[in-house]
Amino acid sequence: MTTKTVAIASDHAGYQLKAVLMDDLKAAGYDVLNLGTDGPESVDYPDFGYAVGDAIADGKAEMGVLVCGSGIGISIAANRNPAVRAAVVSDNLTARLARQHNDANVICFGERLIGVEAARDAMRAFLAEPFEGGRHGRRVDKLTSRT
Amino acid sequence: MTTKTVAIASDHAGYQLKAVLMDDLKAAGYDVLNLGTDGPESVDYPDFGYAVGDAIADGKAEMGVLVCGSGIGISIAANRNPAVRAAVVSDNLTARLARQHNDANVICFGERLIGVEAARDAMRAFLAEPFEGGRHGRRVDKLTSRT
Repeated sequence: MTTKTVAIASDHAGYQLKAVLMDDLKAAGYDVLNLGTDGPESVDYPDFGYAVGDAIADGKAEMGVLVCGSGIGISIAANRNPAVRAAVVSDNLTARLARQHNDANVICFGERLIGVEAARDAMRAFLAEPFEGGRHGRRVDKLTSRT
Repeated sequence: MTTKTVAIASDHAGYQLKAVLMDDLKAAGYDVLNLGTDGPESVDYPDFGYAVGDAIADGKAEMGVLVCGSGIGISIAANRNPAVRAAVVSDNLTARLARQHNDANVICFGERLIGVEAARDAMRAFLAEPFEGGRHGRRVDKLTSRT
């Protein structure tokens, strides 16, 4: 079994939760590609959403984790890339649904909105949950290439 | 004051909440562009997310409302269009944050996850809340055109 690489990034409003999630990823045996930011200096969230999108599109990572204040802005940036299916997740259930139905490959959190333990639990669920395929496969294909 | 046009669409898992929200939009005086679906027959959510994105990109609507089972899949489709800033919203607060910080122009709901009254309240807040501009403007520009 090869080790899966997870790209992770945040803006300044999300770097503290990102650090916690990064530790969890390493402890769970993933290779982690840290694309910043790593401190409180103000940065622009789109740059970090795009960076994780590029890492996935270029095959440098299989999955991604993103954090900003609400999770919304950074998820919009990531979803500009057709290789990305990014879901803003508020709990374990939304994390599992995003995997089951949408084959989501990027999980997004709002550090100002979700507690640390809820985010850790949701990320763990997201990484473990399989895609259901079937009719959902046709829909996911339409997210990659519009037909 | 000109009347704002709001495009609205859902898949089969969201058509009932869509009907309620459509009535609210009309009652509030918006012009409503209904792009379907309007019944329980199975359809593919990306088609409806793309349709609302096209309506906004083509200037046929200023804002959009989307509903699917979780809100996630249809928001990914809408965000493929650089003219769209679509936010999956779980309550009044996330609706307002999406407007204040991200100038979101499409609000997405998961009919299986949010109650009808919470969704109505969030949509009302979303439509009323102004964008804060300032530093957020530079970031929103980066969502439209990557620099």
